[in-house]
Order: sequence, then structure tokens, then C-alpha cells
Amino acid sequence: MIPSRWLPLIGWLHGYRRDILARDLLAAVIVTLMLVPQALAYALLAGLPPEVGLYASMLPLVLYAVFGTSATLAVGPVAVASLMTASALSGIAAPGSAEYVGAALVLAALSGLVLVAMGLLRLGFLANFLSHPVISGFVTASGILIAASQLRHILGVEASGHNLVEMLSALIASLGEVNVITLAIGGGVWGYLLLCRRHLKGGLHRLGLSARASDLVAKAAPVSAVIVTTLLAWALRLGERGVALVGEVPSGLPSLALPSLEPGLWSSLAPSAVLISLVGFVESVSVAQTLAAKRRQRIDPNRELIALGLANLGAGGSGGSPVSGGFSRSVVNFEAGAATPLAGAFTAVGIALATLTLTTPLAFLPKATLAATIIVAVVTLIDLGAIKRTWAYSRADGVAMLATLALTLVHGVESGILAGVSLSLGLHLYRTSRPHSAVVGRVPGSEHFRNVRRHEVETDERLVILRVDESLYFANARYLEDTVMALAARQPGLAHIVLACQAVNVIDASALESLEAINNRLKDAGVSLHLAEVKGPVMDRLEHTDFYRELTGRIFLSTYDAWRALHGDDAGVVPAPDEPSGASLKQGVSP
Amino acid sequence: MIPSRWLPLIGWLHGYRRDILARDLLAAVIVTLMLVPQALAYALLAGLPPEVGLYASMLPLVLYAVFGTSATLAVGPVAVASLMTASALSGIAAPGSAEYVGAALVLAALSGLVLVAMGLLRLGFLANFLSHPVISGFVTASGILIAASQLRHILGVEASGHNLVEMLSALIASLGEVNVITLAIGGGVWGYLLLCRRHLKGGLHRLGLSARASDLVAKAAPVSAVIVTTLLAWALRLGERGVALVGEVPSGLPSLALPSLEPGLWSSLAPSAVLISLVGFVESVSVAQTLAAKRRQRIDPNRELIALGLANLGAGGSGGSPVSGGFSRSVVNFEAGAATPLAGAFTAVGIALATLTLTTPLAFLPKATLAATIIVAVVTLIDLGAIKRTWAYSRADGVAMLATLALTLVHGVESGILAGVSLSLGLHLYRTSRPHSAVVGRVPGSEHFRNVRRHEVETDERLVILRVDESLYFANARYLEDTVMALAARQPGLAHIVLACQAVNVIDASALESLEAINNRLKDAGVSLHLAEVKGPVMDRLEHTDFYRELTGRIFLSTYDAWRALHGDDAGVVPAPDEPSGASLKQGVSP
Repeated sequence: MIPSRWLPLIGWLHGYRRDILARDLLAAVIVTLMLVPQALAYALLAGLPPEVGLYASMLPLVLYAVFGTSATLAVGPVAVASLMTASALSGIAAPGSAEYVGAALVLAALSGLVLVAMGLLRLGFLANFLSHPVISGFVTASGILIAASQLRHILGVEASGHNLVEMLSALIASLGEVNVITLAIGGGVWGYLLLCRRHLKGGLHRLGLSARASDLVAKAAPVSAVIVTTLLAWALRLGERGVALVGEVPSGLPSLALPSLEPGLWSSLAPSAVLISLVGFVESVSVAQTLAAKRRQRIDPNRELIALGLANLGAGGSGGSPVSGGFSRSVVNFEAGAATPLAGAFTAVGIALATLTLTTPLAFLPKATLAATIIVAVVTLIDLGAIKRTWAYSRADGVAMLATLALTLVHGVESGILAGVSLSLGLHLYRTSRPHSAVVGRVPGSEHFRNVRRHEVETDERLVILRVDESLYFANARYLEDTVMALAARQPGLAHIVLACQAVNVIDASALESLEAINNRLKDAGVSLHLAEVKGPVMDRLEHTDFYRELTGRIFLSTYDAWRALHGDDAGVVPAPDEPSGASLKQGVSP
Repeated sequence: MIPSRWLPLIGWLHGYRRDILARDLLAAVIVTLMLVPQALAYALLAGLPPEVGLYASMLPLVLYAVFGTSATLAVGPVAVASLMTASALSGIAAPGSAEYVGAALVLAALSGLVLVAMGLLRLGFLANFLSHPVISGFVTASGILIAASQLRHILGVEASGHNLVEMLSALIASLGEVNVITLAIGGGVWGYLLLCRRHLKGGLHRLGLSARASDLVAKAAPVSAVIVTTLLAWALRLGERGVALVGEVPSGLPSLALPSLEPGLWSSLAPSAVLISLVGFVESVSVAQTLAAKRRQRIDPNRELIALGLANLGAGGSGGSPVSGGFSRSVVNFEAGAATPLAGAFTAVGIALATLTLTTPLAFLPKATLAATIIVAVVTLIDLGAIKRTWAYSRADGVAMLATLALTLVHGVESGILAGVSLSLGLHLYRTSRPHSAVVGRVPGSEHFRNVRRHEVETDERLVILRVDESLYFANARYLEDTVMALAARQPGLAHIVLACQAVNVIDASALESLEAINNRLKDAGVSLHLAEVKGPVMDRLEHTDFYRELTGRIFLSTYDAWRALHGDDAGVVPAPDEPSGASLKQGVSP
């Protein structure tokens, strides 16, 4: 049990048959065809030499295959993590320098450590800090930033900037220096990829290919663009005519080496590593869960953390940049029939073969081709409709999403995501700081109680029953104090307040303190405090507290019991119940 | 209405009678006697010249009297804010220097701006971030730090440090240089004050004084110590024998002047100002509410923010340090009978008279006397029993409290409070990230449903009913996905999942996204998703969403309706309800 718990591969290797091998091999071939240009492109996006993208697509995939719980998640360099890498490294060194590359390895290793630590400490819940609107706004903004950053490669100009405004104004300023051949290649590839995306699948299907096969061929379209433009650049010597090419890529496999251990570098990259880890984890788990559900499989988020962490440690130790699970590649992997994580390991072999054999031709690949590949890929990340939908559904979530989007665009990825997280937390606390509560009265002749503002109910000027509709904790404890004391101040004849707690699942120490304060203050004001319908687990805790010992009133099993005991009561003290079942200090276990 | 809303004084000045005046005057005399030594002592604690404490006890009190909503809150320099001031300024300039004093005024003005802004924007809920365990751990640690920092004045040595360890080791290292006369004075005052605290009240009461009067006289005991030790120091020329005295205090009232407007100073003090404001606000409101409740009065937290903010702006503009509502002085003020905020204004007059007349004798006051006063006062802040109680009640809250306490002691006040806040938030998210939920079954023959693990209930292998016991929001949305998908993966014959939502008050955009994901994944797995008992306000929002339009199942009014419609159903699709009332897509308003 223990080995297969930590090494899922033991489970699926047992019973690995030839037909599964065939499926995994087919998926690996298709994903490799997709991954080669993507690995080069995302290295370009991160400001890194092309081989770093290839190196990040070997050892990390093998490690994920051994430790991962998803059969189909395709790990490797992805767009958003590459953008975040570029942003994290921009303050450290000049893009492309040896120092910059070294820092990228450190970033990968650090992300790996963060992920592994989170997995071992079972801190996966921390990813919950990234609420959906924040992630969505962030990914949309990243897509826009990435697309904007690649336009210069399409135009063949030097124009960069740290935010959208800088990028666009630099582009406009450099419009006079556009390289027409580069633009023709970039624009041509862009148009070709769009055409493939829209029509190739349907066309192939009409020609008799199966729907699935047509789809997979259409997804591999970038490979044909890479081959054609590389041949063009080689045959026409486009490099001599001002077209930026990928240039020499070192042949051979990466060597294993520890990344730099300089403490200053590690501590300055640590915050970025945490953000890259969290974003990568959230995206990977979301893809993996979606795909696993289609086959009624499960993935284990805490073990995914460890597997993704080891993959990143592997990247840092073998010359690669940070990796995570890519959405489009994972879907292709799934649809191509990948049955086990071994498909990922086979993909790593495919990338290794490419690195050993294709580096000479790849030197002629125009950067504009890669840029067009990136743009067509990231445009699918941009979901402006989500803003409208979210805003319509909830103003607070809409504000969080817009703030994340806007700050990411104008102030960079890290400010954007941190502002979004702070705003989500603040808005959540604001929302829960005013828990819904209602003064209730008795539906005449029944044992039911309803909001006095919405229903014709029986009330009693000496008795207020307040139904609390949420758990009581530090964010709303003080509001409860305010609410109760306002009731007491408003109703001079008041003698009893009953808190009906059927919706209270937790009372934390702050809320307990507030209840004590309420009890003492009401006591000073000559009002008794009672509780009703306290749930079993909540009661178990309350029983051993000073609050319970000093409570001026009683704890009733039901609101009706409280009403019966206190209604029409003229004395300040509570009389003994007239029926034994009328009130109880100890309740049974909640349903 | 509008003026009395913003100027509560219009309300209570109308109808101000001679008996109220007498009560306010008496309270003011007693509080003044208490405040003079405290103002000097807290200035000493903050590393400021003694007059700064006196200045902080004039204009701020008048401003609070005009704008405050509490009749009895005694505003002025307090122990914890003085410690926080010393900590905030320690990196800015040398204690006692003109630059240091200038920075203290900026800090007061900044705190004032923060508080006023929070009041105008109704951001008082932000104080909820400071959970009770964090505040309690922080105040206890502050008490320990303050007491430790004053020991050097009792011993008459130079020994300071930034944390408890540094302070104590500096004290031990300097034990050889103890000034015996200083120690005699400090130790004598300390012992005298302890005796007064324990026995004076009872003694006076036995001598025939009323209990209230005895208590008030006992509270004013420090004044007698101040008088006696000042006389001793003057008569015996103790200053020439190495006893540290308060020294020259400028006579006369403070002049009004804007504090320094240097942007660098403001931005470096801003984080400290926010923390001082929040802590001061929480403590002030808690004292004010406790006292107001005893008279069935109310205070308005948002207007308190503005009043405290204006008081701090006044401090910054009249040579004073940050102020807030003091616990012990407010209680004395209340017990002495203060009836309106005018008592505070009278106290300001008393302090002004003292500043005009007493500065010559106060120059002979030994610092050891003030230190003993501080120690005796802050020891009441130290509540180590709270750690045990909180730990026993809730491990999570206990951890937050201990972390705040330990970090404040060893790493300073700001790290301590920030760590506490982060930990509280993290633990809260952790707690709510796993919302309580239970698979329920039907109590045979009834319309009731109970947890299958706790009760003998009817179940159906093609139908799972999951009762969700909390609101769904970003922190727990992913856990719900995990839970539901685990149920689907575990039960191969499953055809329907019903989420019973009677305890769900809110579904935020993240949770909506999770529900959409759950719906899509279950659809891929051939399982229908249904909801039951959705509350009115939640339903109103869901109706306009894609989730609602694409929901594979139905929305039932009650869990029993869902059971009736789906139990024993063999088809994957949901049949029409056999009775018109059996299921409804639209619900009424929740109770």
C-alpha cells in the first residue's frame, strides 16, 4: 500500500498491456509534435534561450510520470508561467544572459521546493486564496500581455516594456522600422493557424478522416508552419535579410547540475516562486480534474503538489525553466488516447530525440513563426465575457476580477495577483462581517418562527428572538455585539434575548469572547441572554467555558421551548420549566 | 438631525443641567489626578520628552468630547500605543531627539488620517482582521515588553533592546551598575502601589468610606507616590546622587503647528500608523461598548473612528503622540460618574492647569516612580490564563494567540501582529476550506433526512443526497468539487447527485464556477446534478447563470421532493414529477 500511495506508477504499471502501450505511444507522438514549437516559443516568451524550453520538457515530464496522479496531464513550459518567469527575472539580469538563465533555474527549483513543501504539509488549501475571479482576471490579462509582447517579433522590431501601455507605445514608436519579410512570415503563419483552427478540422472530417483524428491533425498544424517557414528561411537565407531566427541551439541532452545556491538570489526570487507555484498548481489541478472526471478517475491534489514540485525541481536541476500542466496539450494528450502517465515519459523521449537531431534545422526557424504560434494559443486564454458574466452575478466578485485584470495590465503580474487576492479576502471579510440575522416571531398557533419583517407573527415586548444565519467567527463577532446591543438599547422593556443558533456551525474564540461580552453587558442592563437550537459539536465546546457557566439565561433545545418558557414571563429571572421536556441544558447530537 | 448626527454634542448639550455638570467635574478631577503621572510615564515609555504626553492629553480630549459617541471613554496616551510608537520610531531617529519628536507628531497625524478615512469610508469592519486571540496575545506580549523595558528605570541603569531577550540580557549585563537609591525609590513605589491596589480600597471601605469612593481613592494612589518621591528627590538633591529625574518640562500650553510634511517620513511611518490605528480603535471601541452597555447606551463604531481620528489629528497638530481610549482611565471616569463627554474636556482643562503650574516641581520627579507606575498598570494587561483558556477551547485560536505572543516578544510588535493576522486568516480559510457536509438518507417512512453515518436510514445506490452545511465561496469551492467527484468515482452505479442547500446563504462566483465544473464533469460521467432547498436570495442569482441553464438535473423545493422524484428511478434522465407540487424550478422567498 505505501509504495503505491507515493508511487502511483506501481499501480498502473502492473497490468500494463500492449494496447495501452500503443495508445500511450500515439498520444506521445502527437504531443511531441505540439510541444517542440511550444517549448521554443515559451522560452522566447520568458526571455530565455530556446534550449531551456526543450530541457524543461524532458526530465520534468519523466518525474511527473512517476509521481503524478493524473493519467493525462501534460507537464512542461506553459504560457502564463513563462510570462511570470520573465517578470520575476526582469529585475535580476538582462534577458538571455547567463545570469538570467541561472536565475530561471533557481526559480524552477524554488517553485519545486514550495510545491513539495505544500504537498508534504498538506497546504494545498492555500491555493483557495486564488479565487476564481482573480485567476480568471489574471489569466485574461496575462493573455493580453503575452499577445502584446509577441507583436514585436511579428513586426520584426525592438520594442519592449513592463506593462501594456509601455509595450504598445514602444510598438507604435517603432512602426517605421518594421521588417516586411518578417511581417509577411509572422502574418502568414498567424493567418494560416487561424484558418487551420477554424476550417482544417471540418475539412479533414469531410474528406473522410474521423472527427477525433481530424481534430488532432488540426491541433498539430503549427508543426507544418514551423517546417515550411524554416525551409523558407534556410533556402532564401532570410537571416541575412533582417529576419530574426532562433539561431544556434546546442545539440545534446541537458546535463544535471545544481542551480546556483546564492542566498540573496533565492530570497529575492522566493515571492515570485510562491506565486508561480500557486498559479501553476491551480491551473494544473483544474485541467487534471476536468480530464479525470471524463473517465470517472480521481486525482489527489496533495500528491499533485508533490509531483508538480518534483517536476520543477527536475527542471531546475536539468537546465529548465518552471513547468506546470498545460491546458491545450493535456486536452490533446487526453483525446489522443493517453491511458497512463507513461505517455508523458514517452513525450520526454520524443523531445530528447528532437533535441538530438533537429537542432541544426531549428536554427533557421524564424522567431515570427513562434510568436504567431504563441499569439494564436494565448488568445484562447482571453475571456472578456467572463467579466460581464461575473459582474452580473456578483458585484464584489466582478470588482475583484476587474482590479486583478487592470492591475496586471498596467502594473505587472505580481501586483495584479496580490491585489486580487487582498481584495477577495477583504470583500469576503466584509461580506461575512455582517452575518444575516433576523428577529423572529411565532407563527400564531404553531411551533414555527419567522422573520418579523416579512411575516405576520406573534411577538413579545419583553422577549426578542434573534435567529443568527451564519457561523460566528472573528470577522462577524463584533457585528453580533452591535446588533444585540442595538436591540437592547431600542427596546426599554426588554428582559430576555434568545439567540437561535440552528445555522451556527462554529463559534471561534473571538465569537466566544463576544458572547461573553454580550452576556455581561446584557446582565448590566438587566437582560437575560439565552441560546436555542445549539448544534451538538458547538455545544460540546461551549460546555467547558466561562461563558457557559456565567450565562444569565438558559440553553433551550428549540426556539419554541424558549418561547414557551419566556413568553409572558414578568420576572427578570427565568422560572423553572413547567414541563420536563420544555428546556434542556444539554442537547443531543445534531442531525 | 444632520448636525446632531455628526456632532453628538448638540444632542447632550441640550438639557445639560447643574447636577450633570457636578458629576462631570468630579470625574474630571479624579481622571486628571490619574492622567498626569500616566501622561508623563507613557511619554517616557515612547522615548519622548514628558511634555509630549501632557500635550497629547489636551486638544485630543477636547476634540473627542465634541465628536465622540461615548460619554465615558477617556482618550489620551495609552501603554500599548506608546510601545508601538517607540517601535515605529526606533528606526527613524534617536529617542528624545527633535527629529524623533517630529516623527511622533507625524505618526499621530497619520493615525488620525487613517482613522478618519476608515470612518468616512465605513471601513470599521477592517478591525475584524484583528481577531480576539491575536489582540489578546498581542496585548499580553506588549504588557510583558513594557514591564521589561521599565525595569532599567527601576534599577537606574542604561539597558535597552528591541526584544525581550535583548532587554533582559542587557539588564543582566548591567546589574553591576545598579543605582541603589533609584532602586529603593522604584522598588518602594512599586511595593506601595501593589499594597494600595490590594488593600487600600478594602481599608478605606472599612474606615467608613463608601465602596465607590474607596475604589476611586485607591485608583489615585500613584499621585501620592509622585508627590512623596518628588519631594524626597528635591529635599535630598537625589538628582546629584545619580537618580534619573524627569528634568525640565517646558511650562505653558502647546502651540498649534502642522507636523512635518516630508513624503519619505510619511510613507515610512504609514504601515505603523495603520497598525496603531487599528489596535487603538479595537481597544477603544471594546472599552466604550462595555461601559455604554452598563447604562443601556450605544456607541457608533464608524463615528468613533472619526472622533478618534480627529483626536489623533489634534495630537499631531499640537505636539502630542498617538492617542486612543484607555481602559483603566475610562473605567475610573465611568465610576466617578462622568455623564457626558464634557468630563473629558474638563480633564483637558485640568491637564492644562497642571502643565501651567506644576512643571517646576515635576522636574524633580524620579523616573523610577513613573516606571513603577507603568509596571503596576501594565501587569493587568498580561493575561497568561487566556492562553490556556483559548487553547482549551480551540487549538487553531490557541496557535494564533501563541504565535502572536511569541513573535511580538522576540521579533517586535509589528511582526507579531502581522503574523497573528496572517495566521488567523490562514486558519480561518483552512477551517472553512473544508465545509461540513454529509451524505444523508431518508429516515424510513418520514420526510426527514439524516447523516448516513450516524443514523439507520434508507439509501439508494443510484442516488446520493449531499447536505452542504456552509455557504459556498472561494475558500471551499474546490473542496466541494473534490467531495462530489469522489462520491461519483466511488459509486459506479450512481445516476443522480442532489445537493441539499438549506445552509447555503451565499454562492460566490468561484463556487458558481465550481458548480458548473461539477455539473459538466458529472455529465461526462453520466450523472445528473440536482439541487434542493435553495434559499430565495441564492436562487434569485442562480436563475440568470449558465449553470442554471445547463444544469443536467432539477431544482427541488425540498429534499423529500428530490427523493420522491429520483428514488428507484432507473433511467438516466429525470422523469416528470408525478404530482404537480412534487418539484418546482422556482422557489418562494426563504423564511
